[in-house]
Amino acid sequence: MSILIVGSVFFDDIQTPHGSAQRQLGGAATYFAVGASFFAPVQMVAAIGEDFPGEEIDYLAERGIDIAGLQRRAGLTGSWSGRYHEDMNRRDTLDLQLNVFADFEPHLPASYRQAQYVFLGNIAPRLQRFVLDQLPAPGVVGCDTMNHWISEARPDLEQLLARVGFLVINDEEARLLSGEHNIVRAARRLLAMGPERVLIKRGEYGVIQFAADSVFAVPAFPLEQVFDPTGAGDTFAGGFMGELARSGDTSEAGVRRAIVYGSVLASFVVEDFGLSRLRTLTVDAVEHRYRQFVSLTDIDGR
Amino acid sequence: MSILIVGSVFFDDIQTPHGSAQRQLGGAATYFAVGASFFAPVQMVAAIGEDFPGEEIDYLAERGIDIAGLQRRAGLTGSWSGRYHEDMNRRDTLDLQLNVFADFEPHLPASYRQAQYVFLGNIAPRLQRFVLDQLPAPGVVGCDTMNHWISEARPDLEQLLARVGFLVINDEEARLLSGEHNIVRAARRLLAMGPERVLIKRGEYGVIQFAADSVFAVPAFPLEQVFDPTGAGDTFAGGFMGELARSGDTSEAGVRRAIVYGSVLASFVVEDFGLSRLRTLTVDAVEHRYRQFVSLTDIDGR
Repeated sequence: MSILIVGSVFFDDIQTPHGSAQRQLGGAATYFAVGASFFAPVQMVAAIGEDFPGEEIDYLAERGIDIAGLQRRAGLTGSWSGRYHEDMNRRDTLDLQLNVFADFEPHLPASYRQAQYVFLGNIAPRLQRFVLDQLPAPGVVGCDTMNHWISEARPDLEQLLARVGFLVINDEEARLLSGEHNIVRAARRLLAMGPERVLIKRGEYGVIQFAADSVFAVPAFPLEQVFDPTGAGDTFAGGFMGELARSGDTSEAGVRRAIVYGSVLASFVVEDFGLSRLRTLTVDAVEHRYRQFVSLTDIDGR
Repeated sequence: MSILIVGSVFFDDIQTPHGSAQRQLGGAATYFAVGASFFAPVQMVAAIGEDFPGEEIDYLAERGIDIAGLQRRAGLTGSWSGRYHEDMNRRDTLDLQLNVFADFEPHLPASYRQAQYVFLGNIAPRLQRFVLDQLPAPGVVGCDTMNHWISEARPDLEQLLARVGFLVINDEEARLLSGEHNIVRAARRLLAMGPERVLIKRGEYGVIQFAADSVFAVPAFPLEQVFDPTGAGDTFAGGFMGELARSGDTSEAGVRRAIVYGSVLASFVVEDFGLSRLRTLTVDAVEHRYRQFVSLTDIDGR
């Protein structure tokens, strides 16, 4: 079953304590799509500019990502420049040029409209709803958002949340959106807004998922070096939705395994700049690290 | 099998965003001893002052804590006053009076010298070594330390670490002691100093344990309200060593289960001021929350 992702494509200039890299292919939709592509076919909707290289189009297509929804527009692809602190949970944005992303309208190709697994990446909530309006029968719907929309478009966002199954956000966003500092109370408030499950990303501390009657927490994979955290959250979401689409299992156990697969993908993407590590990653390596996650977390020492 | 704990007894004045409480029985040895007492008999070595109430002596004795090693000295019991921030991972010390703790010398009663399970609470490393010198055949030895000793008594501390099996410290201390910011690298350096296992406490994010060939991470129990974090780390250590002594199982699986029992005890102690929650806690409630931890962490959704 294929997965529909709608979101941003950017080129990133990245500075970390370990070095810097220019013009890395990035953006939430890109990280998501590549992460999900390890599990299932992907349909991608995003705006790219005249400067977007043909070889990156080829790369996406080779990964099983349907690019019919990539809208090539007059102008430049969006670009972001940022610098991470020594504590890489913190970063500063040095420059942001939305370019063709500024007036992105996520019209879906007809071939995308039967999508069953849908992820609404971090774009304006009214555009996320516009995507849903084009889908007659979406099955499993997840979404992300960010501080900007929580502050500036809360009514739109609340209307969206009533229509999604999975909300995937970070702890800071969960606190802002719920008005609660305590993460358990925050999650309870977010569940009351509509989603069946709330997945809260906690950076180097992993992910905690709340549903009406269950909680599941998984640590991040302990790495000797986090090289570049860019895209980790989006890659997590891609691996998560990818595994759900691969297995078709949205039971508690199925969702938990999907969270671990998301965590596996995220643990790889941070090992090198941008998408570099995912470009060489194998399915065998993914499955090996999944088993390492079992060993990392199993109380009975399996 | 009983457990020997050596450390501090204090009275704490505590301010949190939820309220304040005065003259709470505290100190690392107290929290440890009460936590461990849910699993095994405890022998406790600490200095108390003339002001230490008889009813608290009775409480400790009722919990199966052997108080032969409590040294009542001329003067007052140590006292600490602190205030937690809204983010309760942070606190300020408002006042500290060492009182009888200032010249504490941990001489062991003869009846304590066959101890097999030993925890060296946070006191001067030379005193921790002095305790070990009095034990002809200690079996399982754990220790804690703090920033002050890492900075001021590193040679003593390094000599101690060569003689302990379990180092139980928090993430900030692990970074300071190892000189590594990354927690995996930090743990590798600490293992090289001697301990077979390093348990790193991460506050609301739980505990991560490193051995030569294994890593185990467990989240903290998600609570709707953390009322007072005082003593959580010491209570964790008490539950951990307590379960090791109860089971006698220091295999990988046994140690992991002990880490979860420590996390269970810590999750209770923070539910009320000081030791209040542990005073009414039942073994049934401990076992119930252990099963909740299994459910919280099990990838296959047990």
